[in-house]
Amino acid sequence: MCSVYSVGPVEKISSLQNPRVKQLVKLRDRRPRDEAGVFLVEGYREIRRALKKQVRLQELYFAPEWFLGENEPELLRQAEAAGARLFELTKDAFAKVAYRERPDGLLAVAPQWRRELADLSLPAAPFLLVVEAIEKPGNLGTILRSADAAGCHAVIVCDPVTDIFNPNVVRASTGVLFSVPLVVAESGPVRAWLKARGIRAVATTPAAPTLYTEADLRGPLAVVMGSEQYGLSDFWLREADQPVRIPMAGQADSLNVAMATIITLFEAVRQRGR
Amino acid sequence: MCSVYSVGPVEKISSLQNPRVKQLVKLRDRRPRDEAGVFLVEGYREIRRALKKQVRLQELYFAPEWFLGENEPELLRQAEAAGARLFELTKDAFAKVAYRERPDGLLAVAPQWRRELADLSLPAAPFLLVVEAIEKPGNLGTILRSADAAGCHAVIVCDPVTDIFNPNVVRASTGVLFSVPLVVAESGPVRAWLKARGIRAVATTPAAPTLYTEADLRGPLAVVMGSEQYGLSDFWLREADQPVRIPMAGQADSLNVAMATIITLFEAVRQRGR
Repeated sequence: MCSVYSVGPVEKISSLQNPRVKQLVKLRDRRPRDEAGVFLVEGYREIRRALKKQVRLQELYFAPEWFLGENEPELLRQAEAAGARLFELTKDAFAKVAYRERPDGLLAVAPQWRRELADLSLPAAPFLLVVEAIEKPGNLGTILRSADAAGCHAVIVCDPVTDIFNPNVVRASTGVLFSVPLVVAESGPVRAWLKARGIRAVATTPAAPTLYTEADLRGPLAVVMGSEQYGLSDFWLREADQPVRIPMAGQADSLNVAMATIITLFEAVRQRGR
Repeated sequence: MCSVYSVGPVEKISSLQNPRVKQLVKLRDRRPRDEAGVFLVEGYREIRRALKKQVRLQELYFAPEWFLGENEPELLRQAEAAGARLFELTKDAFAKVAYRERPDGLLAVAPQWRRELADLSLPAAPFLLVVEAIEKPGNLGTILRSADAAGCHAVIVCDPVTDIFNPNVVRASTGVLFSVPLVVAESGPVRAWLKARGIRAVATTPAAPTLYTEADLRGPLAVVMGSEQYGLSDFWLREADQPVRIPMAGQADSLNVAMATIITLFEAVRQRGR
Protein backbone atom coordinates (compact mmCIF):
# COMPACT_ATOMS: atom_id res chain seq x y z
CA MET A 1 0.00 0.00 0.00
CA CYS A 2 1.09 3.55 -0.58
CA SER A 3 1.28 6.32 1.96
CA VAL A 4 1.85 10.03 1.80
CA TYR A 5 4.59 9.39 4.36
CA SER A 6 6.74 7.18 2.22
CA VAL A 7 8.28 6.95 -1.20
CA GLY A 8 7.81 3.19 -1.15
CA PRO A 9 5.09 0.84 0.00
CA VAL A 10 4.06 1.05 3.65
CA GLU A 11 2.39 -1.80 5.43
CA LYS A 12 -0.64 -0.65 7.42
CA ILE A 13 -1.48 -2.25 10.73
CA SER A 14 -4.78 -1.89 12.52
CA SER A 15 -5.18 -5.19 14.36
CA LEU A 16 -4.06 -5.36 17.98
CA GLN A 17 -3.41 -9.05 17.30
CA ASN A 18 -0.92 -8.36 14.54
CA PRO A 19 2.28 -10.34 15.25
CA ARG A 20 4.41 -7.19 14.90
CA VAL A 21 2.28 -5.41 17.47
CA LYS A 22 2.72 -8.32 19.84
CA GLN A 23 6.46 -8.43 19.27
CA LEU A 24 6.81 -4.70 19.99
CA VAL A 25 5.09 -5.18 23.33
CA LYS A 26 7.40 -8.11 24.11
CA LEU A 27 10.48 -5.99 23.43
CA ARG A 28 9.81 -4.09 26.63
CA ASP A 29 11.28 -7.10 28.41
CA ARG A 30 14.93 -7.90 28.40
CA ARG A 31 14.96 -11.50 27.29
CA PRO A 32 13.01 -10.99 24.04
CA ARG A 33 15.16 -7.91 23.41
CA ASP A 34 18.39 -9.84 23.81
CA GLU A 35 17.11 -12.79 21.79
CA ALA A 36 16.22 -10.50 18.91
CA GLY A 37 19.34 -8.34 19.40
CA VAL A 38 17.26 -5.16 19.15
CA PHE A 39 15.63 -2.52 21.35
CA LEU A 40 12.89 0.10 21.24
CA VAL A 41 13.45 3.77 20.54
CA GLU A 42 10.30 5.79 21.09
CA GLY A 43 9.75 9.45 20.38
CA TYR A 44 10.68 12.10 17.85
CA ARG A 45 13.70 13.48 19.69
CA GLU A 46 15.16 10.06 20.44
CA ILE A 47 14.70 8.73 16.91
CA ARG A 48 16.13 11.92 15.44
CA ARG A 49 19.25 11.49 17.59
CA ALA A 50 19.57 7.86 16.59
CA LEU A 51 19.43 8.79 12.88
CA LYS A 52 21.90 11.61 13.42
CA LYS A 53 24.34 9.08 14.85
CA GLN A 54 23.85 6.73 11.89
CA VAL A 55 22.10 4.09 13.98
CA ARG A 56 20.64 1.67 11.43
CA LEU A 57 17.00 1.58 12.50
CA GLN A 58 15.39 -1.62 11.27
CA GLU A 59 11.74 -0.67 11.56
CA LEU A 60 9.84 2.53 12.18
CA TYR A 61 6.21 2.38 13.32
CA PHE A 62 4.21 5.57 13.06
CA ALA A 63 0.67 6.76 13.68
CA PRO A 64 -0.11 10.22 12.25
CA GLU A 65 -3.07 10.61 14.62
CA TRP A 66 -0.58 10.84 17.52
CA PHE A 67 1.84 13.25 15.83
CA LEU A 68 2.62 16.40 17.82
CA GLY A 69 3.44 18.58 14.84
CA GLU A 70 7.20 18.16 14.79
CA ASN A 71 8.63 17.54 11.35
CA GLU A 72 7.53 13.90 11.37
CA PRO A 73 7.28 13.41 7.57
CA GLU A 74 10.92 14.48 7.18
CA LEU A 75 11.96 12.10 9.98
CA LEU A 76 10.14 9.23 8.25
CA ARG A 77 11.81 10.11 4.97
CA GLN A 78 15.24 10.09 6.60
CA ALA A 79 14.59 6.80 8.37
CA GLU A 80 13.42 5.18 5.15
CA ALA A 81 16.42 6.52 3.25
CA ALA A 82 18.64 5.02 5.96
CA GLY A 83 17.10 1.60 5.43
CA ALA A 84 14.27 1.41 8.00
CA ARG A 85 11.09 -0.36 7.00
CA LEU A 86 8.01 1.78 7.67
CA PHE A 87 4.71 0.64 9.16
CA GLU A 88 1.68 2.87 9.53
CA LEU A 89 -0.48 2.10 12.57
CA THR A 90 -3.98 3.13 13.53
CA LYS A 91 -4.37 5.23 16.64
CA ASP A 92 -5.45 2.22 18.70
CA ALA A 93 -2.73 -0.07 17.44
CA PHE A 94 -0.11 2.56 18.24
CA ALA A 95 -1.54 3.08 21.71
CA LYS A 96 -0.90 -0.59 22.33
CA VAL A 97 2.74 -0.57 21.22
CA ALA A 98 3.59 2.82 22.73
CA TYR A 99 5.57 2.64 25.92
CA ARG A 100 5.04 6.23 26.96
CA GLU A 101 1.98 7.59 28.64
CA ARG A 102 1.72 10.33 26.03
CA PRO A 103 2.90 8.84 22.75
CA ASP A 104 3.94 11.01 19.85
CA GLY A 105 3.25 8.41 17.18
CA LEU A 106 6.83 7.29 16.53
CA LEU A 107 8.46 4.04 17.61
CA ALA A 108 11.56 2.49 16.11
CA VAL A 109 13.36 -0.82 16.45
CA ALA A 110 17.14 -0.44 16.56
CA PRO A 111 19.92 -3.02 16.68
CA GLN A 112 21.72 -3.51 19.99
CA TRP A 113 25.46 -3.05 20.04
CA ARG A 114 28.35 -4.00 22.26
CA ARG A 115 31.31 -1.72 22.78
CA GLU A 116 34.42 -2.97 24.58
CA LEU A 117 36.94 -0.99 26.59
CA ALA A 118 39.42 -1.60 23.79
CA ASP A 119 37.05 0.06 21.32
CA LEU A 120 37.18 3.43 23.08
CA SER A 121 39.16 6.10 21.33
CA LEU A 122 40.23 8.54 24.02
CA PRO A 123 42.28 11.73 24.25
CA ALA A 124 45.49 11.99 26.31
CA ALA A 125 43.63 13.15 29.41
CA PRO A 126 40.31 11.33 29.28
CA PHE A 127 37.36 12.34 31.44
CA LEU A 128 35.32 9.22 32.18
CA LEU A 129 32.35 8.27 34.28
CA VAL A 130 32.18 4.81 35.83
CA VAL A 131 28.86 3.77 37.38
CA GLU A 132 28.45 0.63 39.39
CA ALA A 133 25.36 -1.57 39.45
CA ILE A 134 22.83 1.23 38.92
CA GLU A 135 19.40 -0.27 39.55
CA LYS A 136 16.87 2.18 38.14
CA PRO A 137 16.76 2.66 34.37
CA GLY A 138 15.58 6.25 34.87
CA ASN A 139 18.66 7.02 36.94
CA LEU A 140 20.97 5.48 34.36
CA GLY A 141 19.33 7.55 31.62
CA THR A 142 19.64 10.76 33.64
CA ILE A 143 23.27 9.94 34.39
CA LEU A 144 23.95 9.55 30.66
CA ARG A 145 22.45 13.00 30.06
CA SER A 146 24.72 14.43 32.75
CA ALA A 147 27.79 12.78 31.27
CA ASP A 148 26.87 14.20 27.87
CA ALA A 149 26.36 17.69 29.27
CA ALA A 150 29.65 17.52 31.15
CA GLY A 151 31.52 16.33 28.07
CA CYS A 152 32.61 12.94 29.38
CA HIS A 153 34.48 10.96 26.74
CA ALA A 154 32.79 7.72 27.75
CA VAL A 155 30.57 6.13 30.36
CA ILE A 156 31.49 2.70 31.70
CA VAL A 157 28.69 0.72 33.32
CA CYS A 158 30.14 -1.88 35.72
CA ASP A 159 28.32 -5.02 36.83
CA PRO A 160 25.02 -3.78 35.43
CA VAL A 161 21.73 -4.54 37.12
CA THR A 162 19.87 -2.50 34.55
CA ASP A 163 19.95 -3.32 30.85
CA ILE A 164 21.27 -0.28 28.99
CA PHE A 165 18.65 -1.00 26.30
CA ASN A 166 15.71 -0.77 28.72
CA PRO A 167 13.09 1.62 27.25
CA ASN A 168 13.31 3.79 30.38
CA VAL A 169 17.06 4.26 29.88
CA VAL A 170 16.46 5.38 26.31
CA ARG A 171 13.69 7.73 27.43
CA ALA A 172 15.45 9.25 30.46
CA SER A 173 18.60 9.71 28.39
CA THR A 174 16.50 11.58 25.77
CA GLY A 175 18.48 9.68 23.15
CA VAL A 176 21.90 10.65 24.51
CA LEU A 177 22.42 6.88 24.69
CA PHE A 178 23.29 7.18 21.00
CA SER A 179 25.93 9.88 21.38
CA VAL A 180 27.87 9.09 24.57
CA PRO A 181 30.24 6.13 24.09
CA LEU A 182 29.01 3.49 26.50
CA VAL A 183 30.80 0.34 27.62
CA VAL A 184 29.41 -2.43 29.82
CA ALA A 185 32.07 -4.38 31.71
CA GLU A 186 33.03 -6.07 34.97
CA SER A 187 34.61 -3.96 37.70
CA GLY A 188 37.86 -5.97 37.84
CA PRO A 189 38.86 -5.53 34.21
CA VAL A 190 37.75 -1.88 34.31
CA ARG A 191 40.00 -1.18 37.29
CA ALA A 192 42.95 -2.89 35.57
CA TRP A 193 42.28 -0.98 32.34
CA LEU A 194 42.18 2.38 34.15
CA LYS A 195 45.41 1.58 35.99
CA ALA A 196 47.20 0.51 32.82
CA ARG A 197 46.30 3.85 31.21
CA GLY A 198 47.19 5.98 34.23
CA ILE A 199 43.60 7.15 34.70
CA ARG A 200 42.90 8.13 38.33
CA ALA A 201 39.74 6.68 39.83
CA VAL A 202 38.01 9.20 42.11
CA ALA A 203 35.09 7.62 43.94
CA THR A 204 32.28 9.39 45.76
CA THR A 205 31.32 8.03 49.16
CA PRO A 206 29.81 9.75 52.22
CA ALA A 207 32.57 8.45 54.51
CA ALA A 208 35.50 10.05 52.65
CA PRO A 209 37.51 12.67 54.59
CA THR A 210 38.24 14.77 51.48
CA LEU A 211 35.62 17.04 49.92
CA TYR A 212 35.10 16.49 46.19
CA THR A 213 35.98 20.15 45.64
CA GLU A 214 39.36 19.70 47.36
CA ALA A 215 40.46 16.75 45.22
CA ASP A 216 42.37 17.32 42.00
CA LEU A 217 39.98 16.37 39.21
CA ARG A 218 42.22 17.44 36.32
CA GLY A 219 44.21 15.14 34.06
CA PRO A 220 43.19 11.58 33.21
CA LEU A 221 40.14 11.01 35.42
CA ALA A 222 37.43 8.45 36.06
CA VAL A 223 34.65 9.56 38.42
CA VAL A 224 33.26 6.41 40.05
CA MET A 225 29.70 6.31 41.43
CA GLY A 226 28.09 3.48 43.43
CA SER A 227 24.59 2.06 43.26
CA GLU A 228 21.43 3.71 44.60
CA GLN A 229 20.90 1.40 47.51
CA TYR A 230 24.32 0.20 48.52
CA GLY A 231 26.66 2.96 47.38
CA LEU A 232 30.14 1.91 46.28
CA SER A 233 31.09 -1.74 46.58
CA ASP A 234 33.98 -2.80 48.80
CA PHE A 235 35.93 -3.39 45.63
CA TRP A 236 35.78 0.24 44.48
CA LEU A 237 36.12 1.60 48.01
CA ARG A 238 39.39 -0.32 48.23
CA GLU A 239 40.56 0.20 44.66
CA ALA A 240 39.76 3.86 44.08
CA ASP A 241 42.77 6.16 44.02
CA GLN A 242 40.89 8.81 45.94
CA PRO A 243 37.60 8.69 47.81
CA VAL A 244 35.76 12.01 47.98
CA ARG A 245 32.64 13.25 49.72
CA ILE A 246 29.90 15.70 48.77
CA PRO A 247 28.92 17.88 51.74
CA MET A 248 25.32 17.37 52.83
CA ALA A 249 23.37 20.05 54.63
CA GLY A 250 19.92 18.49 54.83
CA GLN A 251 18.31 15.08 55.04
CA ALA A 252 20.84 12.25 54.71
CA ASP A 253 19.17 10.93 51.58
CA SER A 254 18.50 14.22 49.82
CA LEU A 255 21.01 13.47 47.08
CA ASN A 256 20.29 10.48 44.92
CA VAL A 257 22.96 8.92 42.73
CA ALA A 258 22.00 10.94 39.66
CA MET A 259 22.26 14.20 41.59
CA ALA A 260 25.57 13.24 43.21
CA THR A 261 26.91 12.32 39.78
CA ILE A 262 26.10 15.62 38.13
CA ILE A 263 27.54 17.60 41.05
CA THR A 264 30.82 15.71 40.85
CA LEU A 265 31.03 15.82 37.05
CA PHE A 266 30.51 19.58 36.92
CA GLU A 267 33.12 20.21 39.59
CA ALA A 268 35.50 18.28 37.34
CA VAL A 269 34.39 20.44 34.40
CA ARG A 270 35.14 23.55 36.48
CA GLN A 271 38.61 22.35 37.44
CA ARG A 272 39.47 21.05 34.00
CA GLY A 273 38.38 24.27 32.31
CA ARG A 274 40.93 26.36 34.14
CA MET B 1 -13.47 -1.27 66.50
CA CYS B 2 -10.12 -2.05 68.04
CA SER B 3 -6.88 -2.67 66.21
CA VAL B 4 -3.48 -3.92 67.22
CA TYR B 5 -2.17 -0.77 65.52
CA SER B 6 -3.87 1.74 67.77
CA VAL B 7 -4.48 2.52 71.41
CA GLY B 8 -7.92 3.84 70.50
CA PRO B 9 -10.71 2.78 68.18
CA VAL B 10 -9.85 2.50 64.49
CA GLU B 11 -12.46 2.68 61.81
CA LYS B 12 -12.07 -0.09 59.24
CA ILE B 13 -12.81 0.54 55.59
CA SER B 14 -13.27 -2.15 52.98
CA SER B 15 -15.76 -0.62 50.55
CA LEU B 16 -14.39 1.12 47.48
CA GLN B 17 -17.54 3.24 47.61
CA ASN B 18 -16.77 4.57 51.08
CA PRO B 19 -17.02 8.39 51.02
CA ARG B 20 -13.54 8.72 52.56
CA VAL B 21 -12.06 6.55 49.84
CA LYS B 22 -13.73 8.71 47.22
CA GLN B 23 -12.54 11.90 48.87
CA LEU B 24 -8.93 10.64 48.99
CA VAL B 25 -9.03 9.99 45.25
CA LYS B 26 -10.44 13.50 44.69
CA LEU B 27 -7.58 15.07 46.63
CA ARG B 28 -5.24 14.22 43.77
CA ASP B 29 -6.76 17.23 42.01
CA ARG B 30 -6.02 20.76 42.99
CA ARG B 31 -9.48 22.22 43.37
CA PRO B 32 -10.76 19.68 45.91
CA ARG B 33 -7.42 20.01 47.73
CA ASP B 34 -7.71 23.78 47.95
CA GLU B 35 -11.37 23.63 48.94
CA ALA B 36 -10.58 21.26 51.78
CA GLY B 37 -7.33 23.06 52.64
CA VAL B 38 -5.47 19.76 52.84
CA PHE B 39 -3.15 17.57 50.77
CA LEU B 40 -2.00 13.97 50.52
CA VAL B 41 1.21 12.62 52.03
CA GLU B 42 1.89 9.07 50.93
CA GLY B 43 4.64 6.78 52.11
CA TYR B 44 6.56 5.90 55.24
CA ARG B 45 9.49 8.24 54.69
CA GLU B 46 7.32 11.21 53.79
CA ILE B 47 4.93 10.74 56.72
CA ARG B 48 7.82 10.26 59.12
CA ARG B 49 9.32 13.56 57.96
CA ALA B 50 5.99 15.33 58.34
CA LEU B 51 5.65 14.07 61.91
CA LYS B 52 9.23 15.02 62.69
CA LYS B 53 8.42 18.58 61.61
CA GLN B 54 5.31 18.66 63.81
CA VAL B 55 2.94 18.73 60.83
CA ARG B 56 -0.49 18.10 62.35
CA LEU B 57 -1.69 15.18 60.23
CA GLN B 58 -5.48 15.02 60.30
CA GLU B 59 -5.99 11.47 59.10
CA LEU B 60 -3.78 8.47 58.54
CA TYR B 61 -4.98 5.61 56.34
CA PHE B 62 -3.10 2.36 56.57
CA ALA B 63 -3.26 -1.15 55.14
CA PRO B 64 -0.98 -3.68 56.88
CA GLU B 65 -1.11 -5.99 53.85
CA TRP B 66 0.93 -3.38 51.93
CA PHE B 67 3.49 -2.71 54.69
CA LEU B 68 7.12 -3.10 53.64
CA GLY B 69 8.45 -3.94 57.07
CA GLU B 70 9.56 -0.49 58.18
CA ASN B 71 8.55 0.37 61.71
CA GLU B 72 4.97 1.10 60.68
CA PRO B 73 3.31 0.37 64.08
CA GLU B 74 5.55 2.98 65.72
CA LEU B 75 4.73 5.50 62.99
CA LEU B 76 1.00 4.91 63.53
CA ARG B 77 1.46 5.33 67.27
CA GLN B 78 3.27 8.63 66.77
CA ALA B 79 0.68 9.92 64.32
CA GLU B 80 -2.14 9.03 66.68
CA ALA B 81 -0.37 10.65 69.60
CA ALA B 82 0.01 13.79 67.47
CA GLY B 83 -3.74 13.91 66.86
CA ALA B 84 -4.23 12.04 63.59
CA ARG B 85 -7.33 9.90 63.23
CA LEU B 86 -6.48 6.37 62.05
CA PHE B 87 -8.32 4.31 59.46
CA GLU B 88 -7.46 0.72 58.61
CA LEU B 89 -8.08 -0.24 54.98
CA THR B 90 -8.29 -3.55 53.23
CA LYS B 91 -5.69 -4.26 50.56
CA ASP B 92 -8.13 -3.42 47.76
CA ALA B 93 -9.42 -0.25 49.35
CA PHE B 94 -5.87 0.97 49.87
CA ALA B 95 -4.94 0.14 46.28
CA LYS B 96 -7.71 2.51 45.23
CA VAL B 97 -6.58 5.45 47.37
CA ALA B 98 -2.85 4.92 46.84
CA TYR B 99 -1.28 7.32 44.41
CA ARG B 100 1.94 5.40 43.93
CA GLU B 101 2.42 2.43 41.70
CA ARG B 102 3.93 0.46 44.56
CA PRO B 103 2.12 1.57 47.70
CA ASP B 104 3.57 0.93 51.14
CA GLY B 105 0.24 1.00 52.96
CA LEU B 106 0.48 4.50 54.43
CA LEU B 107 -1.39 7.61 53.32
CA ALA B 108 -1.96 10.74 55.38
CA VAL B 109 -4.03 13.88 54.99
CA ALA B 110 -2.19 17.02 56.10
CA PRO B 111 -3.29 20.64 56.36
CA GLN B 112 -2.03 23.04 53.69
CA TRP B 113 -0.12 26.11 54.85
CA ARG B 114 0.85 29.48 53.46
CA ARG B 115 4.15 31.11 54.29
CA GLU B 116 4.83 34.71 53.28
CA LEU B 117 8.17 36.37 52.53
CA ALA B 118 7.77 38.29 55.77
CA ASP B 119 7.54 35.00 57.68
CA LEU B 120 11.05 33.90 56.70
CA SER B 121 13.64 34.06 59.41
CA LEU B 122 16.98 34.38 57.68
CA PRO B 123 20.64 34.74 58.67
CA ALA B 124 22.74 37.78 57.74
CA ALA B 125 23.94 36.20 54.51
CA PRO B 126 21.01 34.15 53.30
CA PHE B 127 21.35 31.52 50.59
CA LEU B 128 18.06 31.32 48.72
CA LEU B 129 16.69 29.57 45.68
CA VAL B 130 14.07 31.30 43.53
CA VAL B 131 12.31 29.19 40.90
CA GLU B 132 10.03 30.65 38.31
CA ALA B 133 6.92 28.98 36.92
CA ILE B 134 8.18 25.41 37.17
CA GLU B 135 5.71 23.22 35.28
CA LYS B 136 6.41 19.65 36.30
CA PRO B 137 5.67 18.62 39.87
CA GLY B 138 8.45 16.04 39.74
CA ASN B 139 10.97 18.75 38.86
CA LEU B 140 9.78 20.99 41.68
CA GLY B 141 10.10 18.12 44.15
CA THR B 142 13.61 17.26 42.94
CA ILE B 143 14.57 20.94 43.18
CA LEU B 144 13.38 21.03 46.80
CA ARG B 145 15.61 18.02 47.53
CA SER B 146 18.55 19.83 45.96
CA ALA B 147 17.88 22.98 47.98
CA ASP B 148 17.74 20.89 51.13
CA ALA B 149 20.98 19.10 50.31
CA ALA B 150 22.71 22.40 49.53
CA GLY B 151 21.49 23.99 52.75
CA CYS B 152 19.36 26.74 51.21
CA HIS B 153 17.62 28.78 53.88
CA ALA B 154 14.43 29.00 51.83
CA VAL B 155 12.95 28.28 48.42
CA ILE B 156 10.74 30.90 46.79
CA VAL B 157 8.38 29.69 44.07
CA CYS B 158 7.43 32.58 41.78
CA ASP B 159 4.31 32.67 39.61
CA PRO B 160 3.66 28.98 40.17
CA VAL B 161 2.20 26.78 37.46
CA THR B 162 2.47 23.73 39.69
CA ASP B 163 0.69 23.47 43.03
CA ILE B 164 3.29 22.88 45.72
CA PHE B 165 0.84 20.43 47.33
CA ASN B 166 0.58 18.23 44.21
CA PRO B 167 1.19 14.58 45.24
CA ASN B 168 4.10 14.35 42.80
CA VAL B 169 5.83 17.31 44.47
CA VAL B 170 5.51 15.60 47.85
CA ARG B 171 6.79 12.34 46.39
CA ALA B 172 9.70 13.73 44.38
CA SER B 173 10.73 15.87 47.35
CA THR B 174 10.74 12.69 49.51
CA GLY B 175 9.08 14.80 52.22
CA VAL B 176 11.69 17.57 52.13
CA LEU B 177 8.67 19.78 51.43
CA PHE B 178 8.19 19.71 55.19
CA SER B 179 11.68 20.84 56.12
CA VAL B 180 12.72 23.50 53.58
CA PRO B 181 10.95 26.84 54.18
CA LEU B 182 8.88 27.42 51.07
CA VAL B 183 7.19 30.65 49.97
CA VAL B 184 4.89 31.10 46.99
CA ALA B 185 4.80 34.67 45.65
CA GLU B 186 4.70 36.88 42.56
CA SER B 187 7.99 37.80 40.88
CA GLY B 188 7.57 41.57 41.35
CA PRO B 189 7.28 41.55 45.14
CA VAL B 190 10.02 38.92 45.38
CA ARG B 191 12.42 41.12 43.40
CA ALA B 192 11.59 44.15 45.57
CA TRP B 193 12.01 42.09 48.74
CA LEU B 194 15.44 40.78 47.64
CA LYS B 195 16.57 44.32 46.75
CA ALA B 196 15.41 45.75 50.05
CA ARG B 197 17.47 43.14 51.89
CA GLY B 198 20.56 43.50 49.73
CA ILE B 199 20.30 39.93 48.42
CA ARG B 200 21.96 39.54 45.01
CA ALA B 201 19.90 37.75 42.38
CA VAL B 202 22.07 35.50 40.21
CA ALA B 203 20.10 34.03 37.33
CA THR B 204 21.06 31.11 35.11
CA THR B 205 20.52 31.53 31.37
CA PRO B 206 22.31 30.01 28.37
CA ALA B 207 22.96 33.44 26.83
CA ALA B 208 24.97 34.88 29.75
CA PRO B 209 28.62 35.78 29.02
CA THR B 210 29.81 34.88 32.53
CA LEU B 211 30.27 31.27 33.63
CA TYR B 212 28.48 30.40 36.87
CA THR B 213 31.84 29.36 38.31
CA GLU B 214 33.30 32.82 37.64
CA ALA B 215 30.54 34.73 39.42
CA ASP B 216 30.84 35.53 43.11
CA LEU B 217 28.22 33.38 44.84
CA ARG B 218 29.19 34.29 48.40
CA GLY B 219 27.30 36.65 50.69
CA PRO B 220 23.53 37.26 50.52
CA LEU B 221 22.49 35.28 47.45
CA ALA B 222 19.40 34.23 45.56
CA VAL B 223 19.95 31.73 42.73
CA VAL B 224 17.15 32.28 40.19
CA MET B 225 16.06 29.50 37.83
CA GLY B 226 13.57 29.77 34.96
CA SER B 227 10.90 27.36 33.80
CA GLU B 228 11.46 24.11 31.91
CA GLN B 229 10.13 25.25 28.58
CA TYR B 230 10.74 28.97 28.44
CA GLY B 231 13.73 29.52 30.71
CA LEU B 232 13.88 32.80 32.59
CA SER B 233 11.17 35.36 31.92
CA ASP B 234 12.05 38.78 30.51
CA PHE B 235 11.37 40.15 33.96
CA TRP B 236 14.10 38.13 35.65
CA LEU B 237 16.49 38.45 32.70
CA ARG B 238 16.20 42.23 33.12
CA GLU B 239 16.05 42.34 36.89
CA ALA B 240 18.73 39.84 37.89
CA ASP B 241 21.90 41.39 39.28
CA GLN B 242 24.02 38.89 37.40
CA PRO B 243 23.18 36.43 34.63
CA VAL B 244 25.38 33.34 34.55
CA ARG B 245 25.74 30.39 32.24
CA ILE B 246 26.48 26.70 32.76
CA PRO B 247 28.89 25.40 30.09
CA MET B 248 27.31 22.72 27.90
CA ALA B 249 29.41 20.12 26.14
CA GLY B 250 26.76 17.87 24.61
CA GLN B 251 23.23 18.09 23.29
CA ALA B 252 21.69 21.51 23.85
CA ASP B 253 18.93 20.10 26.04
CA SER B 254 20.98 17.69 28.08
CA LEU B 255 20.52 19.70 31.27
CA ASN B 256 17.00 20.05 32.53
CA VAL B 257 16.05 22.68 35.08
CA ALA B 258 16.50 20.36 38.05
CA MET B 259 20.02 19.44 36.91
CA ALA B 260 20.97 23.07 36.22
CA THR B 261 19.68 24.01 39.66
CA ILE B 262 21.73 21.47 41.57
CA ILE B 263 24.89 22.36 39.62
CA THR B 264 24.49 26.05 40.44
CA LEU B 265 23.55 25.47 44.09
CA PHE B 266 26.56 23.25 44.75
CA GLU B 267 28.94 25.73 43.14
CA ALA B 268 27.52 28.27 45.61
CA VAL B 269 28.10 25.75 48.43
CA ARG B 270 31.71 25.37 47.28
CA GLN B 271 32.35 29.09 47.19
CA ARG B 272 30.53 29.81 50.44
CA GLY B 273 32.37 27.05 52.27
CA ARG B 274 35.75 28.65 51.72
